[in-house]
Amino acid sequence: MTLEQLEKLMDQHFPTWRSFSAITSLGEHDITVKMPFRKDLMRAGGTISGPALMALADTAAYYLTLVHAGPVPSAATANLDIHFLTRPKPGDIIATAKMLRLGRRLAVSTVDLHAGDDLVAHATVTYALPSS
Amino acid sequence: MTLEQLEKLMDQHFPTWRSFSAITSLGEHDITVKMPFRKDLMRAGGTISGPALMALADTAAYYLTLVHAGPVPSAATANLDIHFLTRPKPGDIIATAKMLRLGRRLAVSTVDLHAGDDLVAHATVTYALPSS
Amino acid sequence: MTLEQLEKLMDQHFPTWRSFSAITSLGEHDITVKMPFRKDLMRAGGTISGPALMALADTAAYYLTLVHAGPVPSAATANLDIHFLTRPKPGDIIATAKMLRLGRRLAVSTVDLHAGDDLVAHATVTYALPSS
Amino acid sequence: MTLEQLEKLMDQHFPTWRSFSAITSLGEHDITVKMPFRKDLMRAGGTISGPALMALADTAAYYLTLVHAGPVPSAATANLDIHFLTRPKPGDIIATAKMLRLGRRLAVSTVDLHAGDDLVAHATVTYALPSS
Repeated sequence: MTLEQLEKLMDQHFPTWRSFSAITSLGEHDITVKMPFRKDLMRAGGTISGPALMALADTAAYYLTLVHAGPVPSAATANLDIHFLTRPKPGDIIATAKMLRLGRRLAVSTVDLHAGDDLVAHATVTYALPSS
Repeated sequence: MTLEQLEKLMDQHFPTWRSFSAITSLGEHDITVKMPFRKDLMRAGGTISGPALMALADTAAYYLTLVHAGPVPSAATANLDIHFLTRPKPGDIIATAKMLRLGRRLAVSTVDLHAGDDLVAHATVTYALPSS
Repeated sequence: MTLEQLEKLMDQHFPTWRSFSAITSLGEHDITVKMPFRKDLMRAGGTISGPALMALADTAAYYLTLVHAGPVPSAATANLDIHFLTRPKPGDIIATAKMLRLGRRLAVSTVDLHAGDDLVAHATVTYALPSS
Repeated sequence: MTLEQLEKLMDQHFPTWRSFSAITSLGEHDITVKMPFRKDLMRAGGTISGPALMALADTAAYYLTLVHAGPVPSAATANLDIHFLTRPKPGDIIATAKMLRLGRRLAVSTVDLHAGDDLVAHATVTYALPSS
């Protein structure tokens, strides 16, 4: 799928997606997604909440899976493994998802999350593709 | 910490926690947390969204870690690994977290998420404890 | 499959399996596998090596998958996530694998590894089943 | 540590390490380790066994951790998460480990395993460092 087709599909199936994420670039094997800073993404201690980072990692992997597997909005996360490395300071978070393997049944990708120059988390995400 | 002390700590540091989760029981090694159904937890396809389930698993492990490690609200997730097993139908989700090991630096627990009788996800969550 | 059928299948496809592991019991949803102590399983520091524990977790999940999915020796690990909790002292290791979900394409199980009374590791293992 | 110091440390603490692995290069943030092909690394189905790949991923992350954290041979794996992507054909396996974060207590790295041009597995490995 092209970036335009993906955005159209998201508008159709997940009408609120733009309130949370913006696709900033699309490469041959990767995608970059920005989660703009919002105060309600913070948790006690002055850092972005873990669940917000997990949601972003899952979302970036989802967009990448759709781009590579085609319009299968019912693709669902089978496994997500995330390692938190540095506590991000308040600010935008940039997620870069990279496809490791697209099989007929599973799509496995990694997602690196950055806050400025800091690598704040690394995730590996597996999506189960619907049977065709 | 007792259940009362934990709830007081949460009220102080995470004032919105009751809008998302309710602690339904506290055992010697485990805790049970309910995420009441809300329409905005759904995603396309008529199921509860993955990020909502991840947030619940993380939260249940956090409560359990505080109960066992004491009042350390700055404890932070180091790793979360979650496997999605069945797509939950709309309804409450019940999380049961169980402490596997409480060390000086890391607390490792598992979390089982149920929707009715269905096991919908299994997570392993590691919290890093602040140095004392 | 019964325990007898499983052992026969293993003898046929993995003739050396008995040098490494012994199935000590088979329940409706679980299996218990013993890795008898051998000096060459030790690593520096007087503990059982991590790779030996990972191999045992993978093996126990494999046996359980065959029991539940039937004679599919080509089933292959898609993902293994293991948390090491306590360093095991020299001695037998007992693995208990429990099936969380057997789907058409994936089988997800957990494996707890004990050395005496100590829980030494917890793993979650996903096997990909061959297309039928 | 330099490559020479690392090899000396391994000779001292893990005298058999050369039978299993060879360090082929050491960069500023990464290390490359080769597991030479041996027939006994195969499993039924004509592929390299999963436990051999896991052992290699764990080993490469261990070498990298020692290089960056210094001579702490008692560092131990806290968590290993591995995704198997393609079944490797018989042949050498090349592991490239990359340090994501070296903290005072935990070292987190990723390991990519290649067989020829194929990416056969991706692992994330956390080592716990001894208290100093």
